[in-house]
Amino acid sequence: MDVLMRRDLIIDWVETAAQEIKTQMSNDLEVESKSNRKDLVTKLDKATETFFRKQINHYFPGEGILGEEGMGETVENLTGPVWIIDPIDGTANFVLQHNHFAIMIAFYEDGLGQIGVIYDVMADELFVGIKGQGVTWNGHTWQPPFTDKPLDQGLLAVNGSLLMANRWQVQELIDQAMGLRIYGSAGLEFLAVAKGELLAYISPNLKPWDIAAGAVICEELGIKLSQFDGSAIDYLAANPIILAYPKSHQKIRHHYDSNK
Amino acid sequence: MDVLMRRDLIIDWVETAAQEIKTQMSNDLEVESKSNRKDLVTKLDKATETFFRKQINHYFPGEGILGEEGMGETVENLTGPVWIIDPIDGTANFVLQHNHFAIMIAFYEDGLGQIGVIYDVMADELFVGIKGQGVTWNGHTWQPPFTDKPLDQGLLAVNGSLLMANRWQVQELIDQAMGLRIYGSAGLEFLAVAKGELLAYISPNLKPWDIAAGAVICEELGIKLSQFDGSAIDYLAANPIILAYPKSHQKIRHHYDSNK
Repeated sequence: MDVLMRRDLIIDWVETAAQEIKTQMSNDLEVESKSNRKDLVTKLDKATETFFRKQINHYFPGEGILGEEGMGETVENLTGPVWIIDPIDGTANFVLQHNHFAIMIAFYEDGLGQIGVIYDVMADELFVGIKGQGVTWNGHTWQPPFTDKPLDQGLLAVNGSLLMANRWQVQELIDQAMGLRIYGSAGLEFLAVAKGELLAYISPNLKPWDIAAGAVICEELGIKLSQFDGSAIDYLAANPIILAYPKSHQKIRHHYDSNK
Repeated sequence: MDVLMRRDLIIDWVETAAQEIKTQMSNDLEVESKSNRKDLVTKLDKATETFFRKQINHYFPGEGILGEEGMGETVENLTGPVWIIDPIDGTANFVLQHNHFAIMIAFYEDGLGQIGVIYDVMADELFVGIKGQGVTWNGHTWQPPFTDKPLDQGLLAVNGSLLMANRWQVQELIDQAMGLRIYGSAGLEFLAVAKGELLAYISPNLKPWDIAAGAVICEELGIKLSQFDGSAIDYLAANPIILAYPKSHQKIRHHYDSNK
């Protein structure tokens, strides 16, 4: 099946899932903690991942699936076709705000991103990136309002723990930028960079499903993504990431190398 | 003129101003710096304040006006009727994101808030508070989804400088909360508390126009507002503020007293 047919299926699944999430959101979410009291999961995270897995298994039997909630078999390597799913990104926002969360689905082949979809459910903003074919926003061709900008001309998002510990003097970078923002969802922070609302996003510990869809979208727009040390993302591990427009990425990378 | 007629005029002015801002936003904003390179003003901040002053002077000649951009006479005391205006709150967001900014107008009498209006322009969300008559959201009665919650059950917004300097060990409060958010607009941070999306907002240096409208809205909803030391807001000065639901406000106040 070609990439556009896969894309159309994904959009259909995401819209169905979003409708269900909005309908169920006001009921008891059955919130549980995972690794710590702030790492939340709800019955809707689980049900949404299960729904996506069922669709993938139906249309693409045998293809690998990596999902945040681990609601089925998982992959051990990235050979061949692999789906990477975050059913509800920004679960704390979802639980505590009923707002500012995203559905993310990516399709990779041999470790290379082919399709990335992020849906900001409550804002009704759907971003779709396809390798080599650009990005759309709600079906329209999307380009950010500039192709590059130095860090002192825009805003920056930095993970709160990294910031408070001032690891590798990250606060100096924040002083250089025009301001600091924290939205509480990696997916929405990737989208804010894709929109040009942020020049950069820095986070020390993102999982493959936090990154995979946004990586396709942002790289299609010429935005740079790497680990702190400049190496490529490892989609089988947690990653410290720098996502930024080229000049800002270079500045942040240099600052890291000088202060790590 | 009674308070409801004043309210209707304010809403009319705000809608007119918002339409003009959206129309002009893509043109050259003629951005200038004020106290430092991150403290921005545009020709639309100035034009919007001038528009509001003209309306007030027409309908309410002789009433005092305090405005962020100081585009006319200002007041030296709060006796009698006083208007407090922030034509575009979150100017950095306005300039750099074309999103996430607010228009704020408040009407005070003898230092007491009577009407507070905050309009999140791009989200099209209009909050109106009237002393003793509650709050509306886009014309509908507004109540947050809970009346109170302890700090460890919700999210917190803290000004970035306060946070990075870890003044009065504010990072310990952040660790207690479920997470940290920074939106870059005092008005939108007041609204996020009014919506229940945040339990608290802490900022060390807010001007009267950053506070006045949100104060009427939030106090109508039972949300507590004070300076760090618990004293009342001074609407002729800069204020270090704690805005929070009652249990969270008490917790933050106690933490401040123990660590200042």
